[in-house]
Amino acid sequence: MPQATSPAVLTISSKNYSSWSLRGWLLARLAGIDFVENVVSPDDPSARAELLLLSSSILVPALKHDDVTVWDTLAIAEYLNELKPKAGLLPADRAARAHCRAISGEMHSGFSALRSALPMNLRGHFPGFKVWTRAQADIDRICAIWNDCINRYGGPFLFGKKPTIADAMYAPVTTRFRTYDVKLDRVSYAYCDTILAMPEMQEWIAGAKAEPLEYDELEAEF
Amino acid sequence: MPQATSPAVLTISSKNYSSWSLRGWLLARLAGIDFVENVVSPDDPSARAELLLLSSSILVPALKHDDVTVWDTLAIAEYLNELKPKAGLLPADRAARAHCRAISGEMHSGFSALRSALPMNLRGHFPGFKVWTRAQADIDRICAIWNDCINRYGGPFLFGKKPTIADAMYAPVTTRFRTYDVKLDRVSYAYCDTILAMPEMQEWIAGAKAEPLEYDELEAEF
Repeated sequence: MPQATSPAVLTISSKNYSSWSLRGWLLARLAGIDFVENVVSPDDPSARAELLLLSSSILVPALKHDDVTVWDTLAIAEYLNELKPKAGLLPADRAARAHCRAISGEMHSGFSALRSALPMNLRGHFPGFKVWTRAQADIDRICAIWNDCINRYGGPFLFGKKPTIADAMYAPVTTRFRTYDVKLDRVSYAYCDTILAMPEMQEWIAGAKAEPLEYDELEAEF
Repeated sequence: MPQATSPAVLTISSKNYSSWSLRGWLLARLAGIDFVENVVSPDDPSARAELLLLSSSILVPALKHDDVTVWDTLAIAEYLNELKPKAGLLPADRAARAHCRAISGEMHSGFSALRSALPMNLRGHFPGFKVWTRAQADIDRICAIWNDCINRYGGPFLFGKKPTIADAMYAPVTTRFRTYDVKLDRVSYAYCDTILAMPEMQEWIAGAKAEPLEYDELEAEF
């Protein structure tokens, strides 16, 4: 029998531009919780500052569930894993779980050159985009992480047959690689295909394409 | 009876300059694991790049324990919490635990202005240091986090009577506030006192003061 509790509320911003929103939303979907979206306006100064990487992500994503409000993508991931341990958000094996958290942490705190030079833009496509050296170093590290995981755990997701927190953390990167026409090795290219074919990703991308264009003024500020 | 397994190995770099090394080391101490330090040379190009915030922290801190190698400070924290659940690295209450992870995540991915403008330097002291606007916004947010936690959970640590992951994440900040003579509200000042008086912090600071000065050439590069 379904529980009578009210659904959780996930605060997000632009589906086209906000990579942290996508990560939080995907985690909530993978966990299988019942939630509604609360979309903050592009006119909200805090939302704008976060999208422009001028402040840390306190506003989005944020999850309100029962009496708990939790922000920061990794904190939401750990909260959802505690709530839905059977969803497999983390690998069952202890060493693989540590590995999953390590590469999720790298994405969470690092790759600043990639994030600022190749911002997520699901509606955009820039064939022949010139990638500068520091962003390329980030791309090389990400591809090395993906190859290592897929070789070790067999794919098609980073830790095997099912997506984990790490796939949610790297999902926006797969869209950036397509948007900016980034050259990839075979394994990394196939991994992008796997992520972009997920029904949850297709749903999010459709949402980005249907999004009102008010956010587009942000593009000039990136 | 003590176990016969070999101690874990924690890789760190400069005790004077490397704030991520301090966080990882403090977490290992709070967890109570048996470990030895592996200090990487300041001449190591990767260590140098990480200290100068040019790359994400893959090299330090890193923990090798049994067959598991885990890097990234938050991943190490979660690993240690699984290994030593009774150490109380995370609050027992579910909502407090989510809060602890949220503010730990904010430190992990954010406060870039503070981190670049006021780098950790335990041997330094700069009375009257001029704090620029964006770094001041980071300081204000940190003090708001500390006040909120201490009001809610009663102090002297962020989540009550014992230090948690969050205190390890913010410990280097307390040293920066003293090094750069940052003006603080009463609660935040007292919190800095609490952290700096911890025997583990005293031991780390003594190590920084005894550190060979080879790392000092880095200072000019900050």
